[in-house]
Amino acid sequence: MLGFGLARMFVIERVVIVGTGLIGASVGLALREAGFQGSIVGIDASGSELEAAQTIGAVDAVALNPDAHAVALREADAVVLAAPVLAILGWLERVVPLVKAGALVTDVGSTKVEISKAGERWLPGRFLPGDPMAGKESGGAALAEASLFKGASWLFTPLHDATPIELEWREWVAKFGAKVLDLDAEKHDVMCAWVSHLPQYLATALSALLEDAIGDEPELKAIGGRALREMTRLGSSPYSMWRDVAMTNTKAVADTLLALEQRLQHLRENLKTPELREEFARANQFRSR
Amino acid sequence: MLGFGLARMFVIERVVIVGTGLIGASVGLALREAGFQGSIVGIDASGSELEAAQTIGAVDAVALNPDAHAVALREADAVVLAAPVLAILGWLERVVPLVKAGALVTDVGSTKVEISKAGERWLPGRFLPGDPMAGKESGGAALAEASLFKGASWLFTPLHDATPIELEWREWVAKFGAKVLDLDAEKHDVMCAWVSHLPQYLATALSALLEDAIGDEPELKAIGGRALREMTRLGSSPYSMWRDVAMTNTKAVADTLLALEQRLQHLRENLKTPELREEFARANQFRSR
Repeated sequence: MLGFGLARMFVIERVVIVGTGLIGASVGLALREAGFQGSIVGIDASGSELEAAQTIGAVDAVALNPDAHAVALREADAVVLAAPVLAILGWLERVVPLVKAGALVTDVGSTKVEISKAGERWLPGRFLPGDPMAGKESGGAALAEASLFKGASWLFTPLHDATPIELEWREWVAKFGAKVLDLDAEKHDVMCAWVSHLPQYLATALSALLEDAIGDEPELKAIGGRALREMTRLGSSPYSMWRDVAMTNTKAVADTLLALEQRLQHLRENLKTPELREEFARANQFRSR
Repeated sequence: MLGFGLARMFVIERVVIVGTGLIGASVGLALREAGFQGSIVGIDASGSELEAAQTIGAVDAVALNPDAHAVALREADAVVLAAPVLAILGWLERVVPLVKAGALVTDVGSTKVEISKAGERWLPGRFLPGDPMAGKESGGAALAEASLFKGASWLFTPLHDATPIELEWREWVAKFGAKVLDLDAEKHDVMCAWVSHLPQYLATALSALLEDAIGDEPELKAIGGRALREMTRLGSSPYSMWRDVAMTNTKAVADTLLALEQRLQHLRENLKTPELREEFARANQFRSR
């Protein structure tokens, strides 16, 4: 067992959240809900997001300019990068000269191959790539919730054996109520293309198509009811976040989209054949297990 | 004003529901909830569905064989055909020699062009085609609810000016809490292809594709969370109902599927171009109004 004095080295007391939108602010609220007693400082390009995050108690303090950022990052025990993927890549490079040697840097970006590569290059042995599979169709600190991660998966694509401070962060994540799962970054990106990115781009394409077809007929839109609302809910998702996913997981996303195009064509060509029964049987099976 | 004796001719006192699954049994429950005091007799190919409908109070009595069907249909003031479309077409022909001259025949089928044509041929001046835009991904009387139609649209594609007994049926539908909307059958089928049939076949294709891609990896499926669950919920829908929609609205459904295939291809080819922003903007617009 380590003595008390040494063990204190690994205790996360000062957290900096870079990006205090929906996910970042929810991390702050979840930390508090889980009993975190230390300080939480917020950094965000948007002053109003920062203000909203502070108002709801997701952060105690805000760092408003590069000098304040540097101070906060130098003092941080843990830095959580909670921005769209390309912004995370930018921040990864920026925090390198600032964070102290023993600090943890982790992120919540939606794709992991490029982020993991960058983390390995700039922060070897010190970066833990993460991806909480939670969100809403609209962003912003105002929608943040301490319970956002409850029951959701929180994926990690670790680059090395877990360090003590990484184990401590994993404990906080478990306290958020999330189910922690480790996998490698390539597998993460291919798998998330199927279960997360494809559903998003599909909802966007369907919503855009319906906007062109019946957008100016609100009474027809109302007719669709719950099924139509559900299938298009993600149509509200912001371009800013999903552009970065498209940019950094292009091939896997394109592969799943092409597979769906071919599947729709197959169904279309079999609307009056017994093969339609097979497609419904397969779909029923997916839902039943 | 009509005298009491004559007005009684138009009062619906005996209802026969042909098909006591989710929709038919919900019509029975909704009638009771709305204060209907008369008798409700159920007819169904499945004895267990009939039993379930009677157990929950959706029907008072059941007619189990062709002789009993004939007796119930001869006495009916209103016959509600609540089966998949092809079964409705079969029943439309079958009820013709049985129903009395003043009785209303209406239906709840998902496509209206073929049913309207058949109704006009077999029951000229006496058939009111209808389509409540409500349902669940699973069928059966056990899931029936009196409130199923509350807030939903109930479409009619009338073939003639409303008769007194049709007006009475419309009043019941309004009492169910449904929003009544009239349109012609061709417009109904094209419009429902967009807002109802396309979302269904899309969810089926997506679910079947995901079953092939990750069906045997339940932990990956769990990762998708709410978005994946919503986008595939309709994957549970029964083939028996949707085969008939595919059979009787083939061209409109195929047109919407082809349009979606092309839209997905467009998005796929623009994952890294500014056109992606336009697609998100259009999708956002569909959701915002």
